Amino acid sequence: MVKNFESNSPILGIDLGGTKIAIACARLDGRVLAEQRILTRPEEGPEKNLECIGEAAAAILDQAGVARVELAALGVSIPGPWDHDAGTFLDLPNLPGWEGYPIRRKLEEDFGVSVHMDNDANAAALAEWKFGAGKGCRDLIYLTMSTGIGGGLILDGRLYRGKNYNAGEVGHQVILPDGPMCGCGLPGHLEALCSGSGMARRLRKRVTEENSIMWQMAGGDPEKLSAEILVAAVRRGDNLAVEFFRQTLDELSTGLANLVFILNPEMIILGTIVARNPDLYLEPLDRLVRRKVWKIFTPDLRIAAARLTDRIGVYAPLALILDALDLEPEEVNE
Amino acid sequence: MVKNFESNSPILGIDLGGTKIAIACARLDGRVLAEQRILTRPEEGPEKNLECIGEAAAAILDQAGVARVELAALGVSIPGPWDHDAGTFLDLPNLPGWEGYPIRRKLEEDFGVSVHMDNDANAAALAEWKFGAGKGCRDLIYLTMSTGIGGGLILDGRLYRGKNYNAGEVGHQVILPDGPMCGCGLPGHLEALCSGSGMARRLRKRVTEENSIMWQMAGGDPEKLSAEILVAAVRRGDNLAVEFFRQTLDELSTGLANLVFILNPEMIILGTIVARNPDLYLEPLDRLVRRKVWKIFTPDLRIAAARLTDRIGVYAPLALILDALDLEPEEVNE
Repeated sequence: MVKNFESNSPILGIDLGGTKIAIACARLDGRVLAEQRILTRPEEGPEKNLECIGEAAAAILDQAGVARVELAALGVSIPGPWDHDAGTFLDLPNLPGWEGYPIRRKLEEDFGVSVHMDNDANAAALAEWKFGAGKGCRDLIYLTMSTGIGGGLILDGRLYRGKNYNAGEVGHQVILPDGPMCGCGLPGHLEALCSGSGMARRLRKRVTEENSIMWQMAGGDPEKLSAEILVAAVRRGDNLAVEFFRQTLDELSTGLANLVFILNPEMIILGTIVARNPDLYLEPLDRLVRRKVWKIFTPDLRIAAARLTDRIGVYAPLALILDALDLEPEEVNE
Repeated sequence: MVKNFESNSPILGIDLGGTKIAIACARLDGRVLAEQRILTRPEEGPEKNLECIGEAAAAILDQAGVARVELAALGVSIPGPWDHDAGTFLDLPNLPGWEGYPIRRKLEEDFGVSVHMDNDANAAALAEWKFGAGKGCRDLIYLTMSTGIGGGLILDGRLYRGKNYNAGEVGHQVILPDGPMCGCGLPGHLEALCSGSGMARRLRKRVTEENSIMWQMAGGDPEKLSAEILVAAVRRGDNLAVEFFRQTLDELSTGLANLVFILNPEMIILGTIVARNPDLYLEPLDRLVRRKVWKIFTPDLRIAAARLTDRIGVYAPLALILDALDLEPEEVNE
């Protein structure tokens, strides 16, 4: 199934998320020809979703003027850890019941090309490195900063995957040993404190009608509290929001400082929540991290917001292909 | 200064520690021909110590029947971070006043060969990987577990150094945000809790004549409390020692679990204190770490004691040379 390819060979990228699936056709040099987003239907199982992906792919290829047999490779990013050797899903919270499904083999059969697959955080790290904020770096750490906190490590100029292809779970380092339970069932993880879902859970225990405008912003329903509401309340100067946000910045900076000590990166790139609010996050984080590490680590250290933001779903799976084929993209201007 | 070399070319290794200097002459295949240990004289400055190293080296070369001009390369491990580009010491607690000294250039001039230098933890990680417990691994983490907790990372089959060549400082991850101050001046680090000096400092605050046999073992002088005394008291069933030791195991296991989440290693190798007491450390650590990480990380994970123990000073600088020249050692039996 290995094909010869040139820089204008067409490829197909699929970003399979818990709520959305992004599908894009591009050239091997990174130019996107056509793309589409469809909704994931987690409860209908993998077969049905692959069917929908197939239909969307057909429409996109049509729009791009590419025949299916021309495709050089497929890139697929999936929302969590997987069994690399078998090419199957592990038990993913977002895709209940999909465990064990041989997604890689099925796609290889359907499209007749090699499928390059990885979890979304690794794929996004590659995309930010090849197309986004991390261009030209050799050592960078990417954190998703979304519902959860996933991570991807570019070390010595390549994606580091680890023994079982599951390295980079930086959101599951312990920050507060007696802290709140993480979605993964273990206590005090960075994700439980500073991810979108973690912040929302903690806000629910603290926000009342009396103490914060966040109560009104959530329509009096604690279940509606979210990172978005927190950030908006910080901007409006709400006392509880400001104090709570300061605390999460401190906790996040501890996690980043740990990573600096361990990996001495050139760059730390922060996704979604931070990328939408760089003015609130970056300057204080930079200051706190520099206070928590030694000076020898900081002359070249940059803490930056992800640049691809809502385009990550398009570029992440494409980056997986470029990486597997050891290619660099042309300059891409979005 | 690059020389041609064969597998029996002689090399010289220097392990420059805060208290001792180990000097060894070996063949490029790893066979040690002669070695010597001399005392470091930190207060007499680098020039005087280099003079002593030169004298010891002359004696060793003599003993090995090797002429100085035959040397293919020099390997040097030093006790802490350094300026890789300049080849100079940074401010090291063990070698006060040596900062800025151009050790690499001086040795290159003295011996007329290339000098391959790194901090002791990186050098020891390479040595355990090439000669010791980590042979055949691609992804391993080495922790010194001595006075301090240094670390070295072998990732994807090579030493990972990071942007400023100072990666691997795994002892400076925060384990207890409000915990005791680390020797480096920052609070709650793994090193402040579980290193030899960290444990001794904490014991001083807890051990009294009434509550533990450690008081007698230290001759009634809290300054004499040490990891050795702790371990001996644990073996004698002293209640405070057992409880304290259990706590440090828990804290150490949190640090190792963080590293597993971040780096998904195949092996974690623990030096000095653990290597001298594998029966007390390894089984409980293994159990605790497995409880604190996801199952996907554990099928291939091994937590092991360092194997080179008191031979590390000989093999660490040699491993630096083999690594720089991209050579593998022959089978070495100690």
